[in-house]
Amino acid sequence: MRVTLLTHTPEPDKIVAAAARLCYSGADIATIQTRLSGEKGAAMIAKLLSLGHESPLEHVSFTFGIEGVSRALSHQLVRHRIASYSQQSQRYVRMEDFEYVTPPAIADSPEAKALFLAAVEALRRAYASLLAHVPAEDARYVLPNACATKLVATLNARSLYNFFALRCCRRAQWEIRALAWDMLRLVKTAAPHVFGQAGADCLSARGCGKGEMSCGTPYSKSELDGGQHEPSRRS
Amino acid sequence: MRVTLLTHTPEPDKIVAAAARLCYSGADIATIQTRLSGEKGAAMIAKLLSLGHESPLEHVSFTFGIEGVSRALSHQLVRHRIASYSQQSQRYVRMEDFEYVTPPAIADSPEAKALFLAAVEALRRAYASLLAHVPAEDARYVLPNACATKLVATLNARSLYNFFALRCCRRAQWEIRALAWDMLRLVKTAAPHVFGQAGADCLSARGCGKGEMSCGTPYSKSELDGGQHEPSRRS
Amino acid sequence: MRVTLLTHTPEPDKIVAAAARLCYSGADIATIQTRLSGEKGAAMIAKLLSLGHESPLEHVSFTFGIEGVSRALSHQLVRHRIASYSQQSQRYVRMEDFEYVTPPAIADSPEAKALFLAAVEALRRAYASLLAHVPAEDARYVLPNACATKLVATLNARSLYNFFALRCCRRAQWEIRALAWDMLRLVKTAAPHVFGQAGADCLSARGCGKGEMSCGTPYSKSELDGGQHEPSRRS
Amino acid sequence: MRVTLLTHTPEPDKIVAAAARLCYSGADIATIQTRLSGEKGAAMIAKLLSLGHESPLEHVSFTFGIEGVSRALSHQLVRHRIASYSQQSQRYVRMEDFEYVTPPAIADSPEAKALFLAAVEALRRAYASLLAHVPAEDARYVLPNACATKLVATLNARSLYNFFALRCCRRAQWEIRALAWDMLRLVKTAAPHVFGQAGADCLSARGCGKGEMSCGTPYSKSELDGGQHEPSRRS
Repeated sequence: MRVTLLTHTPEPDKIVAAAARLCYSGADIATIQTRLSGEKGAAMIAKLLSLGHESPLEHVSFTFGIEGVSRALSHQLVRHRIASYSQQSQRYVRMEDFEYVTPPAIADSPEAKALFLAAVEALRRAYASLLAHVPAEDARYVLPNACATKLVATLNARSLYNFFALRCCRRAQWEIRALAWDMLRLVKTAAPHVFGQAGADCLSARGCGKGEMSCGTPYSKSELDGGQHEPSRRS
Repeated sequence: MRVTLLTHTPEPDKIVAAAARLCYSGADIATIQTRLSGEKGAAMIAKLLSLGHESPLEHVSFTFGIEGVSRALSHQLVRHRIASYSQQSQRYVRMEDFEYVTPPAIADSPEAKALFLAAVEALRRAYASLLAHVPAEDARYVLPNACATKLVATLNARSLYNFFALRCCRRAQWEIRALAWDMLRLVKTAAPHVFGQAGADCLSARGCGKGEMSCGTPYSKSELDGGQHEPSRRS
Repeated sequence: MRVTLLTHTPEPDKIVAAAARLCYSGADIATIQTRLSGEKGAAMIAKLLSLGHESPLEHVSFTFGIEGVSRALSHQLVRHRIASYSQQSQRYVRMEDFEYVTPPAIADSPEAKALFLAAVEALRRAYASLLAHVPAEDARYVLPNACATKLVATLNARSLYNFFALRCCRRAQWEIRALAWDMLRLVKTAAPHVFGQAGADCLSARGCGKGEMSCGTPYSKSELDGGQHEPSRRS
Repeated sequence: MRVTLLTHTPEPDKIVAAAARLCYSGADIATIQTRLSGEKGAAMIAKLLSLGHESPLEHVSFTFGIEGVSRALSHQLVRHRIASYSQQSQRYVRMEDFEYVTPPAIADSPEAKALFLAAVEALRRAYASLLAHVPAEDARYVLPNACATKLVATLNARSLYNFFALRCCRRAQWEIRALAWDMLRLVKTAAPHVFGQAGADCLSARGCGKGEMSCGTPYSKSELDGGQHEPSRRS
């Protein structure tokens, strides 16, 4: 998995703070922006996050390059509808040399790994043979979920909050959870105030919303402070 | 592929016509509804379609049961974002006896078919063996795009117009195109006036919007009048 | 204010329960629907609400006729974007005899009421006079926020949950709050299980999300049990 | 009316071209970006616009400051739902010294202008008097549509294409049409290739979609080439 932050709205703190302030101010936009430079903007953002005033977060967007992820993941990812995607097509791109993603549980079991590798390599051969008879868009019906894909994905900060709440959660599958933690790291670096409260739902002010489907072991702040990476990947 | 219209907003013509009329009328809603019964409602809908006044179409929704389609199709389908989906999960449902979808181009070639069947059956065995070692959500990484899935999908009539414009098109892949034509048939029966102008883009008043990517062989009205099924599936 | 439930997806409980069940079942849709009749469907819906599994709620939509509300309200209402609206146009409908909405705080103060009525009647005359010189779309620039409008609005149950959480809240303005409570009453009658957990945010399992902007006096369940109407309108 | 482009996704051409290319390429994202510098990126964008391949346009967003527009306009503007808004609140901001917008048809008629100014000034006094008795959120019920408001609005390029198609049209009301032309000018300067085909629907490859509601006098390219401003405002 290779995740990069390709681009984003410049100075995200500044525009979010100004948009939030506009709702309650008689001043014009230029004056509001001048007044909210630096610390004051950060304080305004912290306040609006504490009040659940989420709509100003929509004014800033983040565009990610996502490569080396499975089609199992991409099928989950594109279910987030307040977002924009461009994905490598299996109809138009021939995939003879496809990369694939090996689940850790499989990589950790010699027997499972052997089964998995044999299956994937058999599929690669079947796919290549089928291309002699049918178009790529049909041959791809034998390609497995493990097959790697590439996407460019753009989400605004409010939609990212929702994405992180659901996908940084221990209940999310390991692959999209790893992606979510990678994306969270990238946006926290680019816009630390805007994403000051972002992360798994259990870390939010209101806590886990999953009821009896809760994992029962919420992330702890201290656990996270130790490093920039997802806790479950440490050991 | 088994597609059924599970439910829809009752009397779709009536609500679309009344909503459209409301915009231009001083009368109250009950009066408007009374005035637009029968033929007058149909005439109002025909008029708003001719004017490109699409927003009243959003007031009526259609819910489909879709079964026996491939995960290749479902990955395309859920890219339509103004829509709601519930899909059978490969994380939580064990798929040992999965159905699969065979592309017609493969079914029509004895060599391709033999390759395809061997590959799918090998995957079925690999999947079953992996289940002894890892959770279903990981074993599924060997499942192919051909693997069948089930969904419940709900779209309003305006979003369906867009779906049909794109997916009834000869440029769409055969499987989602067959789904689109099946869905079109079902909604035309349930709401003939509301969907009076629905279908592939080439059949719309403005014609194909694909420029040099056009297929070059637009559907003809006469071709469609001959039957209720997709023209390309006739021969 | 006159609010009616014009139409909605038939048997909402049935379709929501079936869609939710599909995600975790190997059975086909017809079998799932048969198994979830009556009590079992209600239990399934109660469970998915307790788990925060909201997406199946999107499959059912509710269409309201809303009349005699102010343009102040309609400007707030249409900010809910996961929804469909048709609104009476002030460009195309002449409003000489416009109804208007009087805020209770104004109605309760003889001095304010006198000021308000004089202002509204002066505007009515100014509007009528302007129509002799300019089109209705320009004359309407003198029409006040109090001027009544009509809409047809359609929202799915998930979007309604969000609408009720925000607009049944005591922090919402009195007019849209009254609308929200009226709509809540209507959908609770039509689909009691689907809306079993709907209402102001303070009544949800997670409680108020407004932080220091909280009103400090959350609704109590017992307060609501006494009647079908909004508590704040009782006295 | 004062419209400024507050910020936007940097190098919009570059990200749109790369996202479009990704769909059809086996190369990785960094390589694609390198290959599409300068002229090649512009050519790629021209091509995707000619093919109606609109989704890559969603990856770039534009944020506008909009001031001195009427509440009649803002009520129309926020009906565009694939967009994000922060608007000055009439509940929380006292408007004693409100600016107002005078329709040109009124400004051009001495009698209408006199009526209009008298009405607006009477309302200003009524509003100020009401504030002595009731909260601002209630006093505002006498404020007219002409009352000026401020917004921050963010739209992606695809949604802007739709906005321009509808609102640069001669059928749109003069005020939002002037806003649309101002916004079009700003984004054409910032991203000339991305907005190479943007504008009123009659200027698009497919032409006006309004049927018999067409204005009958489509804009001509030559008319536009003469200046950067809206043709109808020239004379």
